[in-house]
Formats: sequence, C-alpha cells, structure tokens
Amino acid sequence: MSDERKYRWVGTRPIRHDGVDKVTGRANFGADFSLPGMLHGKVLRSPHAHARIVSIDVAPALALEGVKVAITGADMPDIASEMGTAGEGQVDYAEVSRNVMAREKALYDGHPVAAVAATTSEIAEEALSRIVVEYEVLPHVLTVDEAMAPGAPILHDHLRTAGLDPVPDEPTNVAQRIEIGRGDLAAGFAEADEIVEHEFTTQMVHQGYIEPHAVVARSGEDDQSVVWCCTQGPFTVRAMCAKLLGLDVSKIKVIPSEIGGGFGGKTTVYVEPLAVLLSRKAGRPVKIVMSRQEVFRGSGPASGTRIRVKLGAKADGRLTAAEAWLAYEAGAFKGSPVVAGAMCMFAPYAVENVKIEGYDVVVNKPKVNAYRAPGAPPAAFAAESALDELARKLGMDPVELRLVNAVKEGSQAIYGPKFRAIGMVETLQAAREHPHLKAKLGPNQGRGIATGFWFNAGMQSSASVSLNEDGTATVVSGCPDIGGSRTSLALMAAEELGIDVQKVRPVVADTETIGYNDATGGSRVTFATGMAVIESARDVVRQLRERAASIWGVELEQVEWNDGQALPINGADEGELEPLSIGTLARRAARTGGPISASTSLTARGAGPSFATHICDVEVDPETGVVQVVRYTAIQDAGKAVHPGYVEGQYQGGAAQGIGWALNEEYVYDEKGVLQNPGFLDYRMPVASDLPMIDTVIVEVPNPTHPYGVRGVGETPIIPPLAAVANAVRDATGVRFGDLPMSPPTVLARLDAR
Amino acid sequence: MSDERKYRWVGTRPIRHDGVDKVTGRANFGADFSLPGMLHGKVLRSPHAHARIVSIDVAPALALEGVKVAITGADMPDIASEMGTAGEGQVDYAEVSRNVMAREKALYDGHPVAAVAATTSEIAEEALSRIVVEYEVLPHVLTVDEAMAPGAPILHDHLRTAGLDPVPDEPTNVAQRIEIGRGDLAAGFAEADEIVEHEFTTQMVHQGYIEPHAVVARSGEDDQSVVWCCTQGPFTVRAMCAKLLGLDVSKIKVIPSEIGGGFGGKTTVYVEPLAVLLSRKAGRPVKIVMSRQEVFRGSGPASGTRIRVKLGAKADGRLTAAEAWLAYEAGAFKGSPVVAGAMCMFAPYAVENVKIEGYDVVVNKPKVNAYRAPGAPPAAFAAESALDELARKLGMDPVELRLVNAVKEGSQAIYGPKFRAIGMVETLQAAREHPHLKAKLGPNQGRGIATGFWFNAGMQSSASVSLNEDGTATVVSGCPDIGGSRTSLALMAAEELGIDVQKVRPVVADTETIGYNDATGGSRVTFATGMAVIESARDVVRQLRERAASIWGVELEQVEWNDGQALPINGADEGELEPLSIGTLARRAARTGGPISASTSLTARGAGPSFATHICDVEVDPETGVVQVVRYTAIQDAGKAVHPGYVEGQYQGGAAQGIGWALNEEYVYDEKGVLQNPGFLDYRMPVASDLPMIDTVIVEVPNPTHPYGVRGVGETPIIPPLAAVANAVRDATGVRFGDLPMSPPTVLARLDAR
Repeated sequence: MSDERKYRWVGTRPIRHDGVDKVTGRANFGADFSLPGMLHGKVLRSPHAHARIVSIDVAPALALEGVKVAITGADMPDIASEMGTAGEGQVDYAEVSRNVMAREKALYDGHPVAAVAATTSEIAEEALSRIVVEYEVLPHVLTVDEAMAPGAPILHDHLRTAGLDPVPDEPTNVAQRIEIGRGDLAAGFAEADEIVEHEFTTQMVHQGYIEPHAVVARSGEDDQSVVWCCTQGPFTVRAMCAKLLGLDVSKIKVIPSEIGGGFGGKTTVYVEPLAVLLSRKAGRPVKIVMSRQEVFRGSGPASGTRIRVKLGAKADGRLTAAEAWLAYEAGAFKGSPVVAGAMCMFAPYAVENVKIEGYDVVVNKPKVNAYRAPGAPPAAFAAESALDELARKLGMDPVELRLVNAVKEGSQAIYGPKFRAIGMVETLQAAREHPHLKAKLGPNQGRGIATGFWFNAGMQSSASVSLNEDGTATVVSGCPDIGGSRTSLALMAAEELGIDVQKVRPVVADTETIGYNDATGGSRVTFATGMAVIESARDVVRQLRERAASIWGVELEQVEWNDGQALPINGADEGELEPLSIGTLARRAARTGGPISASTSLTARGAGPSFATHICDVEVDPETGVVQVVRYTAIQDAGKAVHPGYVEGQYQGGAAQGIGWALNEEYVYDEKGVLQNPGFLDYRMPVASDLPMIDTVIVEVPNPTHPYGVRGVGETPIIPPLAAVANAVRDATGVRFGDLPMSPPTVLARLDAR
Repeated sequence: MSDERKYRWVGTRPIRHDGVDKVTGRANFGADFSLPGMLHGKVLRSPHAHARIVSIDVAPALALEGVKVAITGADMPDIASEMGTAGEGQVDYAEVSRNVMAREKALYDGHPVAAVAATTSEIAEEALSRIVVEYEVLPHVLTVDEAMAPGAPILHDHLRTAGLDPVPDEPTNVAQRIEIGRGDLAAGFAEADEIVEHEFTTQMVHQGYIEPHAVVARSGEDDQSVVWCCTQGPFTVRAMCAKLLGLDVSKIKVIPSEIGGGFGGKTTVYVEPLAVLLSRKAGRPVKIVMSRQEVFRGSGPASGTRIRVKLGAKADGRLTAAEAWLAYEAGAFKGSPVVAGAMCMFAPYAVENVKIEGYDVVVNKPKVNAYRAPGAPPAAFAAESALDELARKLGMDPVELRLVNAVKEGSQAIYGPKFRAIGMVETLQAAREHPHLKAKLGPNQGRGIATGFWFNAGMQSSASVSLNEDGTATVVSGCPDIGGSRTSLALMAAEELGIDVQKVRPVVADTETIGYNDATGGSRVTFATGMAVIESARDVVRQLRERAASIWGVELEQVEWNDGQALPINGADEGELEPLSIGTLARRAARTGGPISASTSLTARGAGPSFATHICDVEVDPETGVVQVVRYTAIQDAGKAVHPGYVEGQYQGGAAQGIGWALNEEYVYDEKGVLQNPGFLDYRMPVASDLPMIDTVIVEVPNPTHPYGVRGVGETPIIPPLAAVANAVRDATGVRFGDLPMSPPTVLARLDAR
C-alpha cells in the first residue's frame, strides 16, 4: 500500500526547477519570442453579436505600405464536420474553424472576420481599420432563456437537438439534451420528510489568466511550420492547426512557451492557425499577440447557466430524491460542459432516486472553453446551496447532513461507476474537527460550507527518463508546466532512482521530441504523466540492476536497487561485491550496453476522484452590500501530495477563483450584444487585498490505481466556493442568493428588500 | 539475408527533409542564433609558438565602455587529469581545459590566453588589444623530427612516454609509443624475392569546413546553461562544458544548430566553454563566432607525419613482410591518431609477418582533432605508395598485386579480429572491370590506384519513433545531420512502418530531449543510430499489431504487418476482418492503450569495415609543376546504400578532400612558429574548377551485423586519394613523391632535378 511506504522525495517541498528562471524574469512566455523578418498579425473582429457577412474587402488594407498579407474565412479550407478532442471535451473541427475565423456569419461580438500581417503591429492595426466588411445585422440571443424561447433567433440553421428520440427536424439553439438518472424520483420525493426547491443563475465568467494568447508561426516553402505559443496543449494546437489547414500533423511542430495561466482556457486554438496561415501566405514568420480586450471578447470563457434543483430528505437527513434541470450556455458553437456539471452535482452523495436533465444551448457569445472542473462549479453552487437550505429546514448541522449522505468506497456513483477508495468522508471529518468551524463569528458575519467533486482525468501521456553519464538524469514530458508539474515529475523520478531531486532535470519538450501527450488539464499531469515517468524510471532502474548484475556476473534477482545504488542480495552479498552507485553505473554504461534511458506512452486509467470541503466566513456590509470573505479553509483529498506546497497552491488558487465567480465576476453585455467590460478594470477579479490568507488542509486517501496514490488536485478547489460563499452570505443576512455574482448592488438591493 | 530482401524505401533517393530549408537559406547555422541582451565574446590568442605566461592584466580592457567581463585561465577550475571521450578518440580533460584556455604556458600560435565579452563585437575586439600579457618566449618545435631530437625544447615538463616498459623518467615530447605486430619479420623479409623501402612525410592539414565554430551560451542564476552551437557532438559539448566548469551535465543543455561541415573537427570544444563561463560571469547571453583565421590557428587540424615503410614480397606478389615506423604530430597536447593509422595501413592485406611502430609526438602547433578516418590517410599514403613501387619492381598490375593479398571473410585483421563478410576483393574486382582502368592516357598523363580501409564506428546512440495521431511519424535522434542522416533514418523508419518517407519527420533533438548519443562521426550515424531507429520502429510495429489483435480479438501471431497495414493471418484471415491501416490504428490509439511510440538506446557493435579502391588519372604540366586530376573513380563497399545519392556524395567529398591533401594543402609556419597561411586564400583547398566530376561505384557486400547490411561510408573515401594521386604522378613523371603536398614548386623542383 502506498500510504505505508516511506518516501524520501515524494512529499517534500524543494524549490521548483523553473523557479529561478521565473523570479528573475528570464523565463520566456508566449509574447517573448521573436524572429528576424517577422511580421505582426492582427485580427479584425465583428462588432455585432449576430450578423451575416455579405462581403469583405481587404484591398484597401493591402494597399497600405507595410501590409503584406490579409486573410478571411475564404482563405481557410472549408473542412467537413469531424469530432476531435480539445482539452477535456470533444469539438467539431468544422466549428473550430468557423470560431477561429467566421465564414458565413459573425456569431458574437469579437468573432474574427479577417486578419492581416504587416511589418509593425501599428501598421497592422491601421490596416484593420481599412478593411471593409458589409454586415447584415441579425437579431441575437444572449442567455439560455432567450435562446430556448419559442421563435428565438437561430444561430445555426442546420442545428438540431441531439439526445432527443427522434431528433426533431426544427432548427433550434438547443444543441443537445442529456438525462442522467436512477431509481424512482416520485417515490423518493414521496418518502421525503422535507423538500427544498430552488432556482439558480450564474453568469459567463473568464478564466482570467494573466498571459494573453500569443503565437509566432514560421512556415516554409516545404509546408513545414514551427509554432511557438503559450498553450496547455501543444499537441492539441498541432492537431488543430493541421486539421484546420489540411496538413499532416508531421508538418507542424509546436514549441510551447512558459505559460502564464490557462485554467482550461488554453486548450484550443484561436490565433494559432491564423498565424500559420498568414505565415504560409507571406513566406515570413508572423507573430500575433492578443490584447486583453481580445482575450475577453474572443477566447473561451465559462458558461452562464440556469439551474433548478429539488431535494427531498428524511428527518434524519438521509436524501431520498434529487432532481435537477440545467441549461448551459455553449457560446456560439455547441459544446458547453453541461454533461460534466450534471454528472458532478450530486456525485458526493449516495442518493438513490435521481433525475438530472441538461441542455447545451448556443447563444451569441464567445464559444465557451474549459475552466477548471468545467461545468461543475455552477452545478455544485446549485446543489450545495439547496443542501444548505435543506440542513436549515431539517435543523441539522450542514457537515453532518453531508456526512449522513456521503459516498464512500463501494458507493455507486450517480454517473455510473463504483467508487474505489475516496476521501469524501475524510474531508468532511477534517472539516468537522477544524478549529475554523468552532471559531466565533462577529456582527454581520456568517459561515457556510460546501463540498465539491471532480472525476479527474487520465488521458494520454508520454514521458522519458534518461540517465546522464555522470549519474544525473533528465525527465522529458510533453505537458506544459502550469502548476509545478516539472518538479512533481522530478520528485517521482528522484524517488524511483534514489537520487537528489536537484540532480533530476525536468524538461517540457516540443511536439517533435516526445510521444503524444494530451493537454495539461483535468488535473491529469502529476497523475497520468507521473505514471509514465514512474514507469520509465522503473525501467531505468531495471536496466541499472541488469548492468550491475552483468558487472558482478550474477543474476538480476541478486541485485537490489536501494537509495541510488545497486546492492548484492540473495547470495550475491556473500561475495566481496562493493555497492555500485548510479554514478558509477552511468559512467560505465557505454561499455555495458549503451546509454540508459526509457520512455513510456500510456492512456492512464483510474484517475482517482477528488473531494473537497470548504469553509467560508463572510462579513456583509449592510450599507454598501460589499461581501468580504474574512476567513476561508479549503480541505481536500490529494491522494498523496507529491509536492505539498503546490497542492496547497492549487487549493488556494481554486478557492480564490471560485470566490471571484461568487462575488463579482460576470460578462456584462449591452442590449446590442456588445461586451461592456472586456478588461480587468471593469471585469472585477479578486486581488490580494480582497482575500484573506486561504487556509488549507491536505487529506490523503491514496488513489489505489496510482503507484504513489496520487489524485489530481487542480480542479476540485474551484467547485465548492460558489456555494460556500452563498451559504455564508445566507448565514450572515438570512437571504438566499440564487443569482451570481453577489456583487454589491445586487446584495444591497436584496438586503434593502429584506 | 539482407541482400535478398526487397526494399521499398531503402535504396531510393528522395529529396532530403531538410533540403528546402537549406536551399532557401532558412536553415539556422551556428552564427544565425542571437538572443536579446546578448554580449559578444572575443578570444585573445597567443602570438608565440611557445611562451610562459608571466602575467595577464585585463583591467585596461574592462575599463573600456561596453566591456562587461573578461576571463583568463585563472577563472577556470584547475581540474584533475581524467580521460574522457571526444569524437572518436580519448582526451584528458585537464588538457582540454588548457587547450581551451592556456594556463601556465601558451603552446602554439593561436592558443587562447584570455577572453572578453562586450556589447558589440567591435568593442570586444578593441578590448583584446588592451589586454596586457607578459610572455617569456621559449624555444619551440614544429615537426616530429624537431620534437624527437635529443635536447629538444620540452612542451610539458610532466610528460613521459607511455607504452615503454619501464616508462623512462625523462621529460619528453613523445607522449606514447605503440607497437602492432605478428609473425616473424626477419623471416618474412628473408623469404621475400623483392623488397621496397620508402620514407614519407605529410603536413598538417585542416578539415576546411565552410562554417566556423559559433556558439551562444545563456547561463542563469540557477547555474543552468543553454548552449546553442554548431557541433558534431552536442553531448560531447555538454560533457566537456560540464567537466571543464565543474558542473553536473544536467545543468547544461546543448541545442545543436545545422552544421556547415565538420569532418571530425567539430567533435570537441573550443569557444563553447568560454562562452558559458563569460555568460555565467556576465549574467547575460554571450555569443562567440570564430573567424576563419581563428579556425585555422585555434581549432583541431590533422597531424603532419613522418612514416617509413618496408615491404617484402614473393615474385608472385604475395607479401611476406610489412614493416612501418610512424610518427604523428599531436599538436600541443598528446593524442594524435597514430594508433588508428598504424592499425589501418596494412589492414587490407593478409600479410603474416608485420611490425608497426608508432609515436605520438607533441609539437608547438594546434592540438590535432579527428579528420575523416583520423590517422589513416597518411599511413595509407605510405603503404599504398610503397605497394605501387613493389608492383613496379615485380612487374605486376597494381590491382592484381592487391587482389593476391586482399583480406576476405575469415582473414585475421592485423589489428586483431577476424573479418566477417567484407568487400575488399569486390572493390578491387569492380576496379579491374571498370572502363576507367582501360581508358587511354594522353601525354604527361599517368594513372594510379590505391585502396583504403576504415573500421567504422558503432558507439552509443539513442533514437525514438513516435506515431502521430494521423498515421504520420516522427523519428528523433541526437546526432546532428551532416551527411543526410535525417533522411537515411527516415528511410529506415519508412521501410519498417510501411509508410511514405515524406510522412516521416526526422528530427535532431537537443541533449535534454533524447537519450545519450555519441557524436556524429566515425561514419556511425546511419549504421548505429539507424539500428536504434530500426529497433524502435519494429517496436512500434509490434505495438500496432497488438492494437490490431486487440481490436480483432485475435492473437498477436495472427496479425501481420505489411505495407503500412495490419493483415489477419494464421486463421484470423478466415473471418471477415478488413485490414487496419496505420492511419486507422493511429486514430484509435487513445482508446486501445494510448500513444504509440518507442525509444531505443544502444552501444552498437559490429560496424562493418569498409574498403575502397580509387583510380586516379593526372596530367602533370612539366612547365609549371601543376598536377591536374583529369579523371577519378571512387569504388567502395557501402554494405547497403540506404540513400545512394548521399553515399555517392560521401565518396566524392572524401576523394576531393584527399586530392587536396595530396596536392596543395599544408600548414605553413615561419621560423618563429607563426602560421603563415590561416585563410582560404593562402591555404589552398580544391575548388570546383580544380576537379573533374568524380565517378563513383557503390559495391554492396552486406554487413552481416546490421539489419539492412549497412556499413558506414564517410571515412574510407579520404584514405586512398593521397597515394592514388602520388602513384598517378609517379606514372606520369617517373618520380616517386614521398613528401606531400605535391604542390607546383615541389613538383617542378623534382621534375627539374630528374
């Protein structure tokens, strides 16, 4: 059992290998790269939420000195509809192509309609203003309510609702209907002593990563392109650029830069294929750096939602029925994370009678993309708010209510499988015992708790471990390091090899020098790529034992690997054999069979689900409606924390983002469907002064399918905060807020109406 | 047997994958790389052949505005003597350190004594002139004769002659004496009907690669350095920079640029460690680009030599005895390739009584480095010239004389092992049947033939093959592509996978993203790295068959891989199973076990020796002494030519360089030991107008230890030309030239004396 194991490196907190590079400012992010002779690309974006593109005339732009090339949708192959993977979800390449560059219609404010490349970015900007686009403005829809209303303006004439049987033949904005359920819902509610029913809305929010998307593409006459960009998924960028431009993937090399945050938002392409296309047309390298405004208007935020929840429970708290209805904005193209939201919302609870109905709805806003536990936060906001009301009705402690219903090893998850060892109960117990829950509240203060669940992902990873000739080692992965995965992977290699973690050099390779890797996302890298690293390192150790065996003239079974050296055992230790260190074996490798290295490619199965319980104290200013989070504790099962400092950082970061989602963040559109707050001044994210130090508790219930028991930790911490904050506000004010964000004007209006 | 195999890709001549990059000028060579904030480094070099360094004052240089740092030998760790590998030979790191930057003494004209880094190269150049070095000039030695003479000035007080028993305790310039022999030499000569005895000298020559050494180094506060440079051996550069600066190799990443020729001369370090040291000291990137003059004065040319040969033979041509004495200039530090010369010179012949004595001699000239078949050309020049005289004495055709004595499968090589299948006889037979040998000669024309032998190297290689999700593939090696190895490796992968070679992307990785690789050299890459590629590709095919078997629900043995698809066999073909193409299997990889890739690290054994026979026609102008090569045919065993066009290119390039060595190239020193011709104007290499089109014949006697029968082809072609040309001049003029080069003044003087 991994929890009985003694670790030497796993569980320690070394300085990250890329730390000095980053604190000294030497690390290269997306926009830091340039090439001689490089052009600067800019993208013209639709000012309309919904408009037919009648014509585009780029000639006046091309007439400007310094402008080298211009492209529109007509320059891109009109590829057939075909499903592929992006980040954690499925995408239709024909739609990715149309999202990257509009073809027939502009579908949202900020939708690209043309692009230019010029010798300077100023000239390129000027060129954009000379492009003449004739639009036929169409009526638009901005919310699921508008989009689902009878007679609503239709975004895609060809769209039919999937998941209905038979699929109706009317054009619609509802891309899909899904249903999850089990048991007998009516019987469950009939059995209940108490029933609560609530409705919730959340607004479109952005991941708010610090670094805007940036790319440099260099294409040659031989059709080979090199793409430098900040992305979570270099292989995804490669696949999408190839697919969208009709090339073999071997024609494209993607070199990922350091990445200034992604949170799921950098798992697809925006300007990357445009840069490649411009470079191919111009015969020169092309750089495109998005502005913050472009990031807000034209990247992939998270869905706004409408959700209804109904819960029934016995007087002892046991849930008898759970029902939910969810509608998620997909943005301009199908594919919201409503399925994941539906699967997660009641996953922490062993309720027998369940029905969840979900709708994926296109609206005239940017196509949504993954954002940390995609789909789960709004669904958990609804479920955990309703549970809070249920606890109040039952007069139960909210932790106890959850403990009564908590899933454990052997429970059948609502979304299908039977849970193996999980930490839902343990995080609740840790919460119950935490001093935070017993601390006294001040005036205008309230406390809320909420839980969260995320599947965690495995997916495809490739990694290699190479021993250097002096006994140091290199670990190569193909997953950009967002949350410290270089050091996590190095720690696991150091553990297996028995060498100092600072003797291990972790490297993020480009798409040509390592096997296929899915994107960094779904909290999968330390888990899945970690498995590939451990497997490779164990192969290296096996080879080291073989070399020692051949030097000693003994059998492999007579060599043990311990603390970085080969030791004779099983009879071999009766001789005069001195231990052989990894350094000695490395130096002798050339003459004992050659270099020692190993690589592993795998589709990792058994990503252990992660559960969290958060405790939040707020103080609500009755004069201004300002909600201040005054204390916050995030408790979560990490399985095994490879680098506890980074695990804590994930807990804290997720909580901070969830608090922002709860309190202030939202996309604000005017009546024409134009985004009103595309910048950090008007889109209000929490800054350091908004938040207390977020306390963390790492619970460790080992994941039985990982060699060290690791579970992903990056997604779950953003799930509980929305409800934890709302429950705390309810506690402080007596008012249940079902609509996010709980920004001062909203709160003040509700308080005044109280 | 590999020769019975039908190949689809191996043996074809596709356009090289890096071809467009190179002909369009987009490929990046060493000097093409720059970084923001980069400084420019320059090296101050000794103007004296031999001088004690009394003091160095860099303060006046540092006082110049724009000069950031200066270093001398005192800034480098005084590392202990320790042997390591460089290119094809062994080096002593303490001496590499002193060659890179003089410490106690300057040992040759051009020996680095200090270096600076400044904001521009002009300022750095100016700074050099301000450095004050106080030298105590010492007497010097330039030739093996001077160096071996009693009472000669001594370069290294600690040097003792290795290989003598007991090792004498007197300081000496003779670093090593070696002896190779077998049989009874006196008896052999006693048995002979004819005996010839001749003496030969050759001059120090340079590889003459087009691209000077260039490096950019960037070092960080965390001691990590990245080194971009043109090199044959990025892992060698990594090892040497680490060793010379006292760092773990994992602290250094070397990214090889494209390379404009190396020929062995780029298998060690010169300015690379200095750039790293300057960058570490300055905290900024540092670029150093050597001038052509610096390349001649301060890189690693090939040894000048003195060689004596005595041969005895029966009247039927059968050799009864062979004796040789060789002294090779090592340059300023020990390590000439005299051992290889001694081993190669009589290797083509099955002579029973042999004694070869060799001396490695230090002189006040640049430390020699590998140059194509290091050591062999001067030795073969001597042996093959003597054989030519022997043929004349015996009245035998020179081809027949060699055929009578030729080694074949089962022959015991003079240097030790028994030959497996080799092509010595076959190349001679191909020569005998070639129309060139029967063509009529004109006035003042003569014809010569000569043979050559090279071991070929295996050494350490790592390579990986990754299948992309659309069925294209990537081949990663760590050996810079000098002679077309990207395409050779891609051809082998295409052959195994059964896909178009243009669907295979061959990549040269940096030292962090692929396992250890010895340098590109010794004609080892297509052979040894090729083996690693073939092994990896076969592993990929096995995985593809496994995936097909699991999809079909059959056993692995029931799946055959043929022409890029899985076919059902052994009973499975009786079902309804459709073939599964590599593209289909690649697309389904994620759900059948994950990405498909494989890597292999090996020390390749069994590099098959390669033999060549060259035929040369010259015309000697009796008025000027100019020797013009008018026809030239290079015949050589390639084992199996993977890309015949590149094999022919190697034959032609080697012949051209050998002709230059024979006719014009030489280091010319004045009496103070200062190099007089450090530039292409005065160092006369053959240009296109000097040479005829060189005809080639590829003989294919498969190497039984390689899957396709490959032998290295890059070294051998430089070995025969020196004697082939001299034998042709002898034929044309009646004069035996024992001293190279046969430049016009020398030839004219001998003709006049005739």
